[in-house]
Amino acid sequence: MTGCRFLRACRSEPVDRVPVWFMRQAGRSLPEYRAARGTGSILSAIADPDLVAELTLQPVRRYGVDAAILFSDIVVPAAAVGFGVEVAPGTGPVVADPFRHPDDLRRLRPLEPEVDTPYVLEAVRAIAAELRPRGVPLIGFAGAPFTVASYLVEGGPSRTYARTKALMHGNPTLWMALVDRLADLAGTSLLSQVEAGAGAVQLFDSWAGALSPDEYRRFVAPATTKVLDALAATGVPRIHFGVGTGELLGQMARAGADVVGVDWRVPLDEARRRIGGRAVQGNLDPALCLAPWPAIEQQVRTVLREGGGIGHIFNLGHGVLPKTDPEILERVVTLVHSTPPSDVARADGANGA
Amino acid sequence: MTGCRFLRACRSEPVDRVPVWFMRQAGRSLPEYRAARGTGSILSAIADPDLVAELTLQPVRRYGVDAAILFSDIVVPAAAVGFGVEVAPGTGPVVADPFRHPDDLRRLRPLEPEVDTPYVLEAVRAIAAELRPRGVPLIGFAGAPFTVASYLVEGGPSRTYARTKALMHGNPTLWMALVDRLADLAGTSLLSQVEAGAGAVQLFDSWAGALSPDEYRRFVAPATTKVLDALAATGVPRIHFGVGTGELLGQMARAGADVVGVDWRVPLDEARRRIGGRAVQGNLDPALCLAPWPAIEQQVRTVLREGGGIGHIFNLGHGVLPKTDPEILERVVTLVHSTPPSDVARADGANGA
Repeated sequence: MTGCRFLRACRSEPVDRVPVWFMRQAGRSLPEYRAARGTGSILSAIADPDLVAELTLQPVRRYGVDAAILFSDIVVPAAAVGFGVEVAPGTGPVVADPFRHPDDLRRLRPLEPEVDTPYVLEAVRAIAAELRPRGVPLIGFAGAPFTVASYLVEGGPSRTYARTKALMHGNPTLWMALVDRLADLAGTSLLSQVEAGAGAVQLFDSWAGALSPDEYRRFVAPATTKVLDALAATGVPRIHFGVGTGELLGQMARAGADVVGVDWRVPLDEARRRIGGRAVQGNLDPALCLAPWPAIEQQVRTVLREGGGIGHIFNLGHGVLPKTDPEILERVVTLVHSTPPSDVARADGANGA
Repeated sequence: MTGCRFLRACRSEPVDRVPVWFMRQAGRSLPEYRAARGTGSILSAIADPDLVAELTLQPVRRYGVDAAILFSDIVVPAAAVGFGVEVAPGTGPVVADPFRHPDDLRRLRPLEPEVDTPYVLEAVRAIAAELRPRGVPLIGFAGAPFTVASYLVEGGPSRTYARTKALMHGNPTLWMALVDRLADLAGTSLLSQVEAGAGAVQLFDSWAGALSPDEYRRFVAPATTKVLDALAATGVPRIHFGVGTGELLGQMARAGADVVGVDWRVPLDEARRRIGGRAVQGNLDPALCLAPWPAIEQQVRTVLREGGGIGHIFNLGHGVLPKTDPEILERVVTLVHSTPPSDVARADGANGA
């Protein structure tokens, strides 16, 4: 078996071990992250390539995970072209002047990565150079059009997406123009990350699960497909992720994903049936990582069994919670790496009922 | 067709019109609610039978909905037996001393409705007397064991349910004892509401969608089944509701529901396939009620078509949002009531694609 196990799993090729990484593995759960990161805004941190490289590499060093993911934020391209978006600590992206009118489209001009986000490319090049000898790929990072749009339209996080849905249903022409611009931003950013050395990409449509299947089909799938299609010629695996997307998995796959991220609500064997032939990524509940180890161990084995050993990248179903003990994640990596794919069906005796 | 259309729909009998009511129809979206309710805590309001009757009846008067739902809160029984829980305005239930140890079970003694919640029974009797001549039933109200437990364990609202999941996985014996006590509270409360005149009940497991199907089966279904079984002999329809429960609908039905509440993420025809023969309630997205009317109208017609005209209670997929214009809900009721069940398949020409 040649090539790294993460990329092989993305292509559903046989692997020596199921690869594992964790969403938000670079984050507040790590003491070395808190020490390096300080208290500045995340957008300032992202503009510092040395810091980004350090934060991105920390979990690779500590956990021995099979992939790094660029330390970034979904609003980086929109902020870089001057839309006017900040990331408030403890809150998330906030927009003082939300997207409301056709004139606001002008605030989303095309991204020129070498001009607008040179620090991203510098970080990617440095990280890729550091990881290449270890055979560990770097996953490029972008927010998907719907989830980014929801922040620009709502002005911040939302529980209901009422303004976003009012715009998509009430002025579909303007909505489609908005997500088309955001598709261009995401596609251009991801392409530039691949050219700088990223070996895969993940498109985060974290909040797509708030949508009905019909809304996703009419108002989201076209723009998301545009992003993923823009990456097709590069040949790098495209991971497509969201939370609470059980009803959308088929559409998310057909939008052009090679790997579909799945949360803990849908068992991976059922998810695989819904996405037809693509690889799956997931799906340990991050909240479970705060439970006693025996419960975690049992669930890791269940996830491995349901993942089937081939075409499975082990991950959480959402990002690492800040209160997670890093030692627990170390044990998860060790357990995943100690289980040959041929043994995953047998690894789960107690929980098969 | 004899009997009210709401009860007939719950039993999947033919109806002259699809019945309609709205979760949280008694609430801040109504100016008459804001005027009557004042600024006191919701638990104080619930202890005032005249106020509860007024708030419960307001939406029946204004909208002509086909059912009233008791103005209440899911923590009423736990608060009444002295567990120590308040409802903070804008936050929800908060518990200063959360459930942690076996000793905390003593804080959940059995409910004696006539002693502990006489004001609930007084309100139910008054409302039922007022509604009887109109042929409109009152739906009794209780929180399901998991959702109530999540507040008692977390100490307040949660996004991750990490403490709740740590308890259920880490100490399943204590967890099962907790939800069994909460099942007794909910069952006893609902029985007393039915005896006082409620013609149906709704069990709110609002946050069950945070669970995996396996967690629901092991840690939630037994207690919920106990609640719904306790109501079986009364013969009143049992509605079982949660949000984001696409993967759980079959289990929620088998727990003993006559009607399963469905949110907008699962089309009602698909939901019906998952619940096998029971009636469905839903599933207009409450966020969509803030969009322009043509989009709402189209979606109401889609919901009616997917509901199929028989065994369908029209509702939102979750509670009315406070910013909702009551006039919009009036128009929804009028539209639902103007569409004979035999016409629902034809009512939706534009959106059938």
